[in-house]
Amino acid sequence: MTDLVTQLRDILPANAVLTDAADRAAFETDWRKLYSHQALCVVLPETTEQISEIIKLCAASGAKIVPQGGNTGLVAGGVPAAGGNQVILSLARMRKIRDFDPVGDTITVEAGVTLQAVQEAAEARGKKFPVSLGAEGTAQIGGVISTNAGGVQVLSYGSMRAQVLGLEVVLPDGRIWHGLRALRKDNTGFDLKQIFIGGEGLLGIITAACLKLSPAVTEHATALAGTASVEGALKLFQALRDTAGAALTLCEYMSGPAMALGAAHVRAGQPPFAAPAYVLAELSGHGASDHVAATLEAVLASALKDGTATDAVIAQSDRERRDLLVLREAVPEGKLKEGGAIKHDIAVPLGAIPETVAAVEALLAAKYPDCRLNVFGHIGDGNLHVNIRPPAGRTLADLADRKAEITTDVEALAVARAGSFSAEHGIGQMRLAGMQAHKSTVELDLMRALKRAIDPQNLLNPGKMLPEA
Amino acid sequence: MTDLVTQLRDILPANAVLTDAADRAAFETDWRKLYSHQALCVVLPETTEQISEIIKLCAASGAKIVPQGGNTGLVAGGVPAAGGNQVILSLARMRKIRDFDPVGDTITVEAGVTLQAVQEAAEARGKKFPVSLGAEGTAQIGGVISTNAGGVQVLSYGSMRAQVLGLEVVLPDGRIWHGLRALRKDNTGFDLKQIFIGGEGLLGIITAACLKLSPAVTEHATALAGTASVEGALKLFQALRDTAGAALTLCEYMSGPAMALGAAHVRAGQPPFAAPAYVLAELSGHGASDHVAATLEAVLASALKDGTATDAVIAQSDRERRDLLVLREAVPEGKLKEGGAIKHDIAVPLGAIPETVAAVEALLAAKYPDCRLNVFGHIGDGNLHVNIRPPAGRTLADLADRKAEITTDVEALAVARAGSFSAEHGIGQMRLAGMQAHKSTVELDLMRALKRAIDPQNLLNPGKMLPEA
Repeated sequence: MTDLVTQLRDILPANAVLTDAADRAAFETDWRKLYSHQALCVVLPETTEQISEIIKLCAASGAKIVPQGGNTGLVAGGVPAAGGNQVILSLARMRKIRDFDPVGDTITVEAGVTLQAVQEAAEARGKKFPVSLGAEGTAQIGGVISTNAGGVQVLSYGSMRAQVLGLEVVLPDGRIWHGLRALRKDNTGFDLKQIFIGGEGLLGIITAACLKLSPAVTEHATALAGTASVEGALKLFQALRDTAGAALTLCEYMSGPAMALGAAHVRAGQPPFAAPAYVLAELSGHGASDHVAATLEAVLASALKDGTATDAVIAQSDRERRDLLVLREAVPEGKLKEGGAIKHDIAVPLGAIPETVAAVEALLAAKYPDCRLNVFGHIGDGNLHVNIRPPAGRTLADLADRKAEITTDVEALAVARAGSFSAEHGIGQMRLAGMQAHKSTVELDLMRALKRAIDPQNLLNPGKMLPEA
Repeated sequence: MTDLVTQLRDILPANAVLTDAADRAAFETDWRKLYSHQALCVVLPETTEQISEIIKLCAASGAKIVPQGGNTGLVAGGVPAAGGNQVILSLARMRKIRDFDPVGDTITVEAGVTLQAVQEAAEARGKKFPVSLGAEGTAQIGGVISTNAGGVQVLSYGSMRAQVLGLEVVLPDGRIWHGLRALRKDNTGFDLKQIFIGGEGLLGIITAACLKLSPAVTEHATALAGTASVEGALKLFQALRDTAGAALTLCEYMSGPAMALGAAHVRAGQPPFAAPAYVLAELSGHGASDHVAATLEAVLASALKDGTATDAVIAQSDRERRDLLVLREAVPEGKLKEGGAIKHDIAVPLGAIPETVAAVEALLAAKYPDCRLNVFGHIGDGNLHVNIRPPAGRTLADLADRKAEITTDVEALAVARAGSFSAEHGIGQMRLAGMQAHKSTVELDLMRALKRAIDPQNLLNPGKMLPEA
């Protein structure tokens, strides 16, 4: 492989091929530090053409390629799998903002631009880029697209897929697909960008994207409500959705125990009242009126009157708004500081949310007594982060030998309700067992046929998403 | 082929295999009556399993299959191509509404349910299905999905693709993909439904779909404005979009000449004032306030003050609203009654709209003098219907020998501006020359690779979308 490294050095700028173990380390280990495999080297190209050349050299030498963005994924999809012979291709140096179109409301950026940089670029131009998630300061747009990331504003704006108008992609044969269109409508053949969005880097390397921007938000109305149960939280979401429509830009559910861990470990994590369940909701408006505030007040007044909500606080200032939003951020942080949990990212049809939570509780009671449940999530998307914590006085390490079994059980509860075992985090290496367990033969065959059609040599991101046949 | 007909009769209900020329005729000819080729027979299955059996029988006998919905497509994608040996598979008898979920806001319908029936089913349940287009009383949901149809509300709700949560599809090998999910988020492998949406029936036969519903609209604010030019219309759209955001649910552009033809031929087509260009806009709200009316009034007042709009009328009643909306419908009707036109359905980045219209005018002046331009379209999507009418005193038939050349020229003007030569109508048979002329080798190769991977025998809808290599 020395040959390949030499060849790569020949075509790339200085310091763009890392071979020392110390230099490679951060690229070889995933965000959650659960997976680590050695790479042949790490390459840091600066142009699409360099990526094309890298692919051709790797293909010729029989090496595989692992595309990597900000390495913030939660399923180890952007780090090497076992098996060796893999080059990590980091998009970190592809970070130009290529174009901004104020009439068409689009921005064209290279894959290595961070999500936060896209948000800031939009804001500086009086627009909004609506995808928002915890790791946005580090996550790169190429990875955000390749994983079809979600986050907290999907219910109004859609996930990352809904923001992408066009892509530039280097294909496994080294050719470049120039699909960087800025069109709202284009029915000329198969919509090829769709197979790369959420494709986890198996079919091509996204090098740039043209993204939709949304009008800037000029008014917010934000509230925290308490409900007696998850049923009440779902009912409150429905009332908000049916009255506010697309103006409902955030609706998060937090169980009482999830909030309690935030409160225990984060200074700003103290909720203004105690409740068995919480809903954090925000309405957004584009005009100058106080319409969304009036709508939020009316829905909450009605919910308090009919008992759907047991308590509610509406932010009266930007400061109070921040204080409420921070409560949601404190929840995963509190869980982590308490010692972590076995994480699951499931989705079910919205009506099945209460019975799914009940089924998880019943599962724990029957099979994993004393394990503790910590649930929060994007209730309007039917997306629950189901975290299983060890019994009091025990650590996560004590649960290690039961982890796979717990995960299989929780995933099965979602799938049995026509749900998803990975709503927004994807498959990567971590959820491969779920693909094998829950996907039909027809579906796996179709996916494998796609992979073979576009990447017959299995050059890109081996050992991810698709279990071996 | 008598054998195949006999075999089909054996597995299908009585009267589900049509072989008489008179019975076949309506299925063999496209909506615009431009394409007609003989089919072996027409089959009218009632279940997904029957469709699976039909595919297997056709594959075994070497016959091809042309899936057909309401046959309202404008590019002859749902009728046989030349070459014979094709069975038309009509989805018309697959018309059950399988499920409605008021909590998840979803409806699950079979492919043969008309678009209007879906809208009405949603409305009867207090919800809205937002895709709307002229042929909605006849167009079937399977065809609307297979062509990723657009219509007049794309700018707020997205095209058909954005409404689809899950699909049931019969594959070219006869297997059924049970992908009828009702989830808002599901990142478990490639998002397979995306290849069938807008796939024009080349990869599988959509037999049922789970669709997103939207909250019912409880308030409308509708206006017609006059502007001095298409530049003014674009500027007015931007002001509406930036102030109203997703509440702007309709924004249509009509040139003065386009409106004049509506007025000349349709009793209800008289605009309340004369202008060089018109914008028909509607804002929609979900609450009970008069917020959208206030927003619309404010934007129009500002546009009248700064000269962007030269005139404006806001509907003051439901009756007046209907009267304004009918003006848009009169435009294509008037054009047809005047004798029709060579039609184009292009899209460009929004900022390129004025120069594209100017370029078409310059093209006509230079190369097709006396031909007359009739433009209208979905300005917020950058989507223009560019219709070229014959010189005064001549008929469309007189232009027949220049039709292909005119179309190539108009399409090229859009493509040269990073636009699309078929924004919402698709390719079918009619736009195949455009695919050959305007698509890159890389893009055509990718599309053909997809087709080969899923339908290696080229069983489904031959002679559509993909020009022969």
